[in-house]
Amino acid sequence: MIVSNLEVPYYAVIFTSVLKDIEISSYYKTAKRMEEIAKEQQGFLGIDSSRTDIGITISYWKTLNDIINWKNNLEHKEAQIKGREEWYSKYQIRICKVEREYGFEDL
Amino acid sequence: MIVSNLEVPYYAVIFTSVLKDIEISSYYKTAKRMEEIAKEQQGFLGIDSSRTDIGITISYWKTLNDIINWKNNLEHKEAQIKGREEWYSKYQIRICKVEREYGFEDL
Repeated sequence: MIVSNLEVPYYAVIFTSVLKDIEISSYYKTAKRMEEIAKEQQGFLGIDSSRTDIGITISYWKTLNDIINWKNNLEHKEAQIKGREEWYSKYQIRICKVEREYGFEDL
Repeated sequence: MIVSNLEVPYYAVIFTSVLKDIEISSYYKTAKRMEEIAKEQQGFLGIDSSRTDIGITISYWKTLNDIINWKNNLEHKEAQIKGREEWYSKYQIRICKVEREYGFEDL
């Protein structure tokens, strides 16, 4: 399910990526683990993730400082290094302020 | 390929969605068409899209006004109505200001 109806303003980290080899099981194991520990961080609001030919993961945070703390989390830093050395051919990270939000649900 | 290295600040529209029935061919045809005409709009900077159990499409724009114009595009408005009536069980739209950006490429 998708994350909905958070209270603006808050922050989003858009992480888009291309894998070197989409069959790397260590990548999927680590990606799952990162999602689990992100959820335990202060200021975490939610995460949306999808991967086809490209991967898109968006995590939502209360403040910019929460994002910096998550970036500097030790286990996360180790994953970032492995990401550059082993898994990704390319990635892009965008730090955004969410200013407006609306949704639809077919009830 | 993913969109990279745009010049901050600019805007992102994060569109996350859940389909009622992922086998709807009219949906895929319209989604493709919307991407084509978005690219022709003023202020369009790029688009990243992926769909597995959820769909994530992020379009990037120079200004908030460019986003409003795209929202009000006639063909886009027709697609929005069909989206609510036929395709989506749920969606969420977030308007964000991209404040920082950095990337990695394994060359």
